[in-house]
Amino acid sequence: MSPSFESPSFAPPGPRREVEEGAALTPRFGSDGLVACIAIDARDGTVLMLAHMNAESLARTLETGEAWYWSRSRGELWHKGATSGQIQRVVEMRVDCDQDALLIRVEVGGDGGCCHTGRRSCFYRRVERDAETGSVALRPAGA
Amino acid sequence: MSPSFESPSFAPPGPRREVEEGAALTPRFGSDGLVACIAIDARDGTVLMLAHMNAESLARTLETGEAWYWSRSRGELWHKGATSGQIQRVVEMRVDCDQDALLIRVEVGGDGGCCHTGRRSCFYRRVERDAETGSVALRPAGA
Repeated sequence: MSPSFESPSFAPPGPRREVEEGAALTPRFGSDGLVACIAIDARDGTVLMLAHMNAESLARTLETGEAWYWSRSRGELWHKGATSGQIQRVVEMRVDCDQDALLIRVEVGGDGGCCHTGRRSCFYRRVERDAETGSVALRPAGA
Repeated sequence: MSPSFESPSFAPPGPRREVEEGAALTPRFGSDGLVACIAIDARDGTVLMLAHMNAESLARTLETGEAWYWSRSRGELWHKGATSGQIQRVVEMRVDCDQDALLIRVEVGGDGGCCHTGRRSCFYRRVERDAETGSVALRPAGA
């Protein structure tokens, strides 16, 4: 039997002061039903990736302690690492002031990577602007 | 005279390999015209905030070296720190594999803070789940 998950529901956001200072998790999902989630490496704080969660992936992440996202490109729930082995064990989750963004500190399984291109982090290129010409180019950056 | 900004234009994303491995910045703006941008403190890597940029705010950020966002709540360009003094000087900008997210390392002006609630980071609350009851609550976290 596969695990059963209750149909997830989060209370809608209340007044601003409660959203910002209260103890209730009331995610402000966008019109697409998603909130952004930043994943950072629990070892050293490196930003690994930015992805999105809907209510169900957020609920599964909280229940299982592993990161579940919503894949916008595939239009489906995405248990990160299910095929690659790069499972993200959630050491800590935080929410921001207006509760429309999440931050998770994760321990990465498998080879410790995150990006589908094979890099550890998805942010492997620097954006550089030439001050004289104004031209912009991407350059490899350590990741 | 206020500074004039060319009407910003970025080339549309090309084939996947170019988007992921090429040297051209071709941001994948969402249907709302925005890309997410993570701001981290250049001093120690602390994640300060998540906000959004449209083409114009991205162009201004590149041209001025200071973070410009698009305020979704106010529906306007937002020069971070213009009123609070918490200017974000961009030390480095990165883009992710599919170019729909940005990461900036910033030096923060003014009192060094970022969040409108007065905290240094917007991620000042931890999301905690009680394993027995399944209940979820937010707890203050150092920020």
